[in-house]
Amino acid sequence: MNSFAPLTLTDQGGFAVGGTTVTTPGTFDPRNPTDPAGQSLHGDHARVFYQVPENPRPLPLVLWHGYKQSGAGWGATPDGREGFQTLFLRRGFPVYTLDQPRRATAGQTTVGTTTDTATTDQWFYNQFRFGLWPENYPGGQFPPGDEAREQFFRSMVPDTGPIDAAILSDAVSALFDRIGPAVLVTHSHAGGFGWLDAMHNGNVKGVVALEPGSGFVFPAGEAPEPMESSAGTMAAVEVPASDFQALTRVPIVVYYGDNIPTEPTDIAGRDNWRIRVAMARLWVDAINHHGGDAQLVLLPEIGITGNTHFLQSDLNNVEIADQISKFLSEKGLD
Amino acid sequence: MNSFAPLTLTDQGGFAVGGTTVTTPGTFDPRNPTDPAGQSLHGDHARVFYQVPENPRPLPLVLWHGYKQSGAGWGATPDGREGFQTLFLRRGFPVYTLDQPRRATAGQTTVGTTTDTATTDQWFYNQFRFGLWPENYPGGQFPPGDEAREQFFRSMVPDTGPIDAAILSDAVSALFDRIGPAVLVTHSHAGGFGWLDAMHNGNVKGVVALEPGSGFVFPAGEAPEPMESSAGTMAAVEVPASDFQALTRVPIVVYYGDNIPTEPTDIAGRDNWRIRVAMARLWVDAINHHGGDAQLVLLPEIGITGNTHFLQSDLNNVEIADQISKFLSEKGLD
Repeated sequence: MNSFAPLTLTDQGGFAVGGTTVTTPGTFDPRNPTDPAGQSLHGDHARVFYQVPENPRPLPLVLWHGYKQSGAGWGATPDGREGFQTLFLRRGFPVYTLDQPRRATAGQTTVGTTTDTATTDQWFYNQFRFGLWPENYPGGQFPPGDEAREQFFRSMVPDTGPIDAAILSDAVSALFDRIGPAVLVTHSHAGGFGWLDAMHNGNVKGVVALEPGSGFVFPAGEAPEPMESSAGTMAAVEVPASDFQALTRVPIVVYYGDNIPTEPTDIAGRDNWRIRVAMARLWVDAINHHGGDAQLVLLPEIGITGNTHFLQSDLNNVEIADQISKFLSEKGLD
Repeated sequence: MNSFAPLTLTDQGGFAVGGTTVTTPGTFDPRNPTDPAGQSLHGDHARVFYQVPENPRPLPLVLWHGYKQSGAGWGATPDGREGFQTLFLRRGFPVYTLDQPRRATAGQTTVGTTTDTATTDQWFYNQFRFGLWPENYPGGQFPPGDEAREQFFRSMVPDTGPIDAAILSDAVSALFDRIGPAVLVTHSHAGGFGWLDAMHNGNVKGVVALEPGSGFVFPAGEAPEPMESSAGTMAAVEVPASDFQALTRVPIVVYYGDNIPTEPTDIAGRDNWRIRVAMARLWVDAINHHGGDAQLVLLPEIGITGNTHFLQSDLNNVEIADQISKFLSEKGLD
């Protein structure tokens, strides 16, 4: 039954990285320990789980989840196949999966929030392009059946505090400081935060962005107008020209899957991606215009069809991994 | 530098188990997807990460973290040594680490809460018997140095919803339904919830309880009086006699570490454990009185000194693992 080929590790473990510490004024009293006076709280760090295979390649991969997800999402697919964590170990890469600050095992936060318990499964089912609820897209790559759907919904994880771009990118930058040169793989919401790390930390040697969903950065004065969709407006982010220039020093690839319209539609979960691909196209052009090396890959255009927003756990995730391996090889990142 | 001996896996992955689903009345509108009407939310599940070594033993170990912790705490110690997850893989056990419902990667919850951001590091430093803040206990087993302390504080994880004993034990019971016969290893707060699973699920073949901190169950009419300490009162939990009887069918061992007083003290973080050990002693006696097989091991009494509340990540955690291996062997659980 188990199709898992044996895999030998030469290291595995975990640690927290980055973060801040707050302290309540006063003096701690061990006779009254529930009084916060004089006590500290450590929060806003990222947490990493890492595994290293035999004969590891020199550059590890850092896998950064998207919105409402955690590092566990790289560990296995909703139908129990191997996730990118295991697939890339098999390809010889040390793999670091992270929970971003204020999420999952990195949930301790210096600023709290009230847990989001809104019923949103159907919204995200559409938004993640598994299909139009309740039907998966014909020929789509989301695993069939109720169990995979249930497992996916239970992979979602709420925030424990406000999302703060500086806190996220600082914690991930601290990870690159600790582990040295590596390739950053972002999914969705992490895409925009990932550019910040690529701009500010020279240990980021390349970026693989799976369906980046926000935070496209442009040099001050060169940002396009905000784009409108039936899912709302998306604005570009302006950064100093010198920061943007830093993005031109590393190879970048951006992938998007299937079922993304090119004309406006009132189905929000689809229209949302129309403007994101349009913005990604302008962004890649801007990088290359400034001397960089970025490419936009729309998977259907290279004959890979049916992919959802979760390229890394779709039925054809080995084929997606093959594409990434090819990119890493071509750019000397393996 | 890396002292990690190669380790071959024959499986690894992860999944959610148990949980509930809530739905908002109405009809989902894909043109207005932020309206919760007609949408569902999946929450209150546990999430599991599992690894299987070569030539696995028949009974896996299920590792259940304590209060303010997550499954990641079994993965590595605060000073970067191997945690129980890896140590017991090396000993041939399939290992399942879980995040309990409403915690960490299992954070999606049907009932929310406001994130706890109180400054409590010093409270828990004392409560976990690393020392009396700011000094580690002389001869204590908590790893020395600022970095280990920082890593420990950053391993703490807040709840995303109220702690509910039935939700916790139901999710873990669903795990035992899925994986079949296994041994449950609980830490601290999980101890009391673990008895519930041992009572109600015949696939729990043994229980190793590391410093259980609450929820000691007794047959109705046989519970001891609540116990008082300078850290507050602890009451026993009464259960139907037939439920309690189910606890007598499996081998159970309970371990406590060092620096636990036998006389009352006004240092709350120490006195807290005086009454817990006293209650555990009565509890073990009750199990055995009713024909069961439970033992209480106070580690200093067998010459193992300096242990904190975190036996599994103390400097001598290999020696603690040896004790557990010996128990499992003696009881035919390996």
